[in-house]
Amino acid sequence: MKETRAILLISCKDKPGIVSQVANFIFENKGNILNLEQHVEDPNRFFARFEWSLEKTEISAQELRKKLTLLLKNFQANWKLKLKNSESKKKVAIFVSKYTHCLLDLLWRKEFGELDFEIPVIISNHLDSEKISREREIEYKYLPVQKENKRVVEEKQLEILLKYKIDLIVLARYMQILTGNLIKHYPEKIINIHHSFLPAFVGGNPYQQAFDKGVKIIGATSHYVTEELDQGPIIEQETTRISHQDSLSRIIQKGRDLERLVLSRALRADLEERIIVFESSKSSRENKGAQKTIVFSQ
Amino acid sequence: MKETRAILLISCKDKPGIVSQVANFIFENKGNILNLEQHVEDPNRFFARFEWSLEKTEISAQELRKKLTLLLKNFQANWKLKLKNSESKKKVAIFVSKYTHCLLDLLWRKEFGELDFEIPVIISNHLDSEKISREREIEYKYLPVQKENKRVVEEKQLEILLKYKIDLIVLARYMQILTGNLIKHYPEKIINIHHSFLPAFVGGNPYQQAFDKGVKIIGATSHYVTEELDQGPIIEQETTRISHQDSLSRIIQKGRDLERLVLSRALRADLEERIIVFESSKSSRENKGAQKTIVFSQ
Amino acid sequence: MKETRAILLISCKDKPGIVSQVANFIFENKGNILNLEQHVEDPNRFFARFEWSLEKTEISAQELRKKLTLLLKNFQANWKLKLKNSESKKKVAIFVSKYTHCLLDLLWRKEFGELDFEIPVIISNHLDSEKISREREIEYKYLPVQKENKRVVEEKQLEILLKYKIDLIVLARYMQILTGNLIKHYPEKIINIHHSFLPAFVGGNPYQQAFDKGVKIIGATSHYVTEELDQGPIIEQETTRISHQDSLSRIIQKGRDLERLVLSRALRADLEERIIVFESSKSSRENKGAQKTIVFSQ
Amino acid sequence: MKETRAILLISCKDKPGIVSQVANFIFENKGNILNLEQHVEDPNRFFARFEWSLEKTEISAQELRKKLTLLLKNFQANWKLKLKNSESKKKVAIFVSKYTHCLLDLLWRKEFGELDFEIPVIISNHLDSEKISREREIEYKYLPVQKENKRVVEEKQLEILLKYKIDLIVLARYMQILTGNLIKHYPEKIINIHHSFLPAFVGGNPYQQAFDKGVKIIGATSHYVTEELDQGPIIEQETTRISHQDSLSRIIQKGRDLERLVLSRALRADLEERIIVFESSKSSRENKGAQKTIVFSQ
Repeated sequence: MKETRAILLISCKDKPGIVSQVANFIFENKGNILNLEQHVEDPNRFFARFEWSLEKTEISAQELRKKLTLLLKNFQANWKLKLKNSESKKKVAIFVSKYTHCLLDLLWRKEFGELDFEIPVIISNHLDSEKISREREIEYKYLPVQKENKRVVEEKQLEILLKYKIDLIVLARYMQILTGNLIKHYPEKIINIHHSFLPAFVGGNPYQQAFDKGVKIIGATSHYVTEELDQGPIIEQETTRISHQDSLSRIIQKGRDLERLVLSRALRADLEERIIVFESSKSSRENKGAQKTIVFSQ
Repeated sequence: MKETRAILLISCKDKPGIVSQVANFIFENKGNILNLEQHVEDPNRFFARFEWSLEKTEISAQELRKKLTLLLKNFQANWKLKLKNSESKKKVAIFVSKYTHCLLDLLWRKEFGELDFEIPVIISNHLDSEKISREREIEYKYLPVQKENKRVVEEKQLEILLKYKIDLIVLARYMQILTGNLIKHYPEKIINIHHSFLPAFVGGNPYQQAFDKGVKIIGATSHYVTEELDQGPIIEQETTRISHQDSLSRIIQKGRDLERLVLSRALRADLEERIIVFESSKSSRENKGAQKTIVFSQ
Repeated sequence: MKETRAILLISCKDKPGIVSQVANFIFENKGNILNLEQHVEDPNRFFARFEWSLEKTEISAQELRKKLTLLLKNFQANWKLKLKNSESKKKVAIFVSKYTHCLLDLLWRKEFGELDFEIPVIISNHLDSEKISREREIEYKYLPVQKENKRVVEEKQLEILLKYKIDLIVLARYMQILTGNLIKHYPEKIINIHHSFLPAFVGGNPYQQAFDKGVKIIGATSHYVTEELDQGPIIEQETTRISHQDSLSRIIQKGRDLERLVLSRALRADLEERIIVFESSKSSRENKGAQKTIVFSQ
Repeated sequence: MKETRAILLISCKDKPGIVSQVANFIFENKGNILNLEQHVEDPNRFFARFEWSLEKTEISAQELRKKLTLLLKNFQANWKLKLKNSESKKKVAIFVSKYTHCLLDLLWRKEFGELDFEIPVIISNHLDSEKISREREIEYKYLPVQKENKRVVEEKQLEILLKYKIDLIVLARYMQILTGNLIKHYPEKIINIHHSFLPAFVGGNPYQQAFDKGVKIIGATSHYVTEELDQGPIIEQETTRISHQDSLSRIIQKGRDLERLVLSRALRADLEERIIVFESSKSSRENKGAQKTIVFSQ
């Protein structure tokens, strides 16, 4: 097998024997488990992430997948198997509007080897990041959006995404709301950074809202995009302290540092296949059918 | 003068000369400034806190107040002057329901000399803190609340508060909503601890709401009570990280540590006269007429 | 079996098949894995924690242990198996000197059901916590320490510890240095709280040291006690921000909040059998033979 | 006066009337105080920062300075007056070795308008940041350092610094130790970022030291450079949590985020003239003659 590492994410009803059977399967196929984390959530829901080396595995990827399908059928599990080698990198399209700090931060982390992914294309409704893209020889698509052309633009975006075989979309401060059509094509494959501690300050101008409200702490939130605005499952959050001495513009600056950190952590978790999205079991009135995430720590 | 320390809080329109005139006033009356912090907020609003020693001041408290009134009239200032000595402590009534952790924490800090105040009375709609009160020889008023007797109970509460000349009310996890009548008697004199990072998760069961939403960070908020539930001006907030591994009961435990910290910090700020409440100048749609606080850091 | 839950901590050289064999063993003995976390550290060291229910296990504890011994011999593993039921609680002796805040915090958490353990005895070289102990009907041993009687006192302490079959010692701000003899009797069984961010500010008066140094952040550290003062393997740390506005006494107050948090978290980790101590593989000049910990997160 | 804003930093023995006299002086010269923060430290030491607008001031800068000198002589004060307009920016030389993340971060913040300063020259003993400098049209001086040429190189560095009239030197991960000669030319004018939570892990490889020690939190520290290595007065620190799951390389990555934040905050404090360095009054054995800082918060 040319792949050298496998990652398996599972969720199903808890039942004795799951770990044992999967671990046996890995052992029998000459894998060595590198990371294993399991979580049981009331009532009776099992989640796990197995990561193992494939270096000595002799059967093909197809074969491995087939055997695993058979095994996990017994547990009626939802699962995802990712086979990786040092060359297989996720293809990530970055959407950005005027503010380039998140984009620049991701480019840095890529260049420093902190995050391992490809950027086939950057899509923007502004020209602010054109030079940044060109300097790095990344394809740059300028697609300005007005009310009237929104649908047309999204069709073009979709075309581009398909052309470049994009695996993941990162909205790095992209200030346009995506429509359901695009979102449906990329379920749990669009990561957004929202510049507030969600669910506080949904919608536009969250720093202004925070300033006006007089909160003593601000936050940033990264989440998968769903059709409900700013309501998708939360991947990562971070907060920092502010005071009356911080003007709105200082709050925005402090917020930028949060946004960079939070978005990069969320992207890392996705790239490393550490996230499972699932439906919240006990839904309160406010959170009907709400989705939340498991983010395995390794 | 038997008082040894003065604290002056001012807010007014910004105008050259305020600091100079107040500092002169202090100097002329033989005070020595110990702490001084000033803040100018756009557009053109001046806030300051002066703290000075009165040890060498020869005029009476009444005289001092009279002179200051005259001086500050020119600036059309809102101001509050507090004269203190080592014996003058705020009389604080603590309201509590079933959960005693915040109450116990405040008692501790009082006993350790961290916070300097008196507790003439503890008022509760449950009996859980009766023993705690008795052991410390604090008056305990048990006033159970049902829907039907709510008004009558509040009248009794008010009577008690007046009898004990209460300066400040602390709702240390008191799970009943106070009515407008009581609140009107104690404007900016009722401190509540809400067990969420407001404005997220207003109302009941915020930890359950946070758990269901799948946030990665929880918080606690201390604020002055106004007639709008959980909307009063925020004094202090703190947050802590949670993960999918934290069950609801662990979240509640982590939250308790936040509640203790946040409530004690808010109380300290009030006892030390470090808080000015003011109306948010730019009010967004969500925050019409919202009030926020300056909490001077010393 | 009267026990209902098993926890297994393993460390050994990494080798394919460990997880699989242990998981099989659990499955075959009708256990259901509740928590599983594994960690591989360069070069080639395997660590894991398995927690499983024993409710359907039919063989005896002795039998289970025997089988496991046989299995893990093949991996030359260091391991510890803990069988628990709702009644089997660790017996913890608390040592305390003058400052009672950590003791009170642990008592609280015990009373609130946050931490599950027994306190057969409190040992102190001062009388400050006698009343606290008596109110809770906990045996209180007052053993004042002078230079001359140090050895005699420790012999008495050891006698008491043995008499009460103590499993774990918590030094809750006990300001005497234990001698090697006592420490040898309780390897990885004495938890200390040091009031600094170790390895900064070893020894006495760390807050004074921090104040004099002008650090902008203070910390607290909980660690197992070894014969080298303040050098034992670190279990937990926390930090908080200070500024020039914080006097030494405010720093000490802020520090107390850290100490309480950190000690309680370290104790929880020990009670829940989540800690493995191991020797740091790459030892720098400063850390020859240094020990560190794995603290599994669930 | 072409300057529009004045900042005055004072330290002296505390004495009644200082604030009053300085505030009068400002008022009489038609200034309006924008920010004022005062701090009194035991025993009897007065520190303050006044910031005021000069827009209506009619006398010359020279005149203003002369009058102030006269006034502050009475208080035997150490003081520094900075007159600024929108064009007067500090000239900052950045020293950097192989790691460019701090340099890039400072360039960003400059470009985003977060920090307001000039970079006449970047000095490096490596070529890694040459392209970065050239793209931004910043002079780049490549001065490789070996043991033998260290003195010669420093002479060249000094020449360059003088030529460009450098106000402030930032060591943005410059991995060479400066000699006393250079340091003496720039007292309290060289800011370093040390990649540990000082005073823990002085010297080289602090992340390796932290990893080996098994700490649960890492930090970064920015300080003014003095002749004693890593002992200069601390300006800013920040910490972040790590666990056994973080490999050394992940720790280094997490550390980079701290370094960027801490260095940029320290630089901001210096650029905004918010720092006073002073000698620690009570020096413990470990901190003889230690210097610490006041960093005014506004």
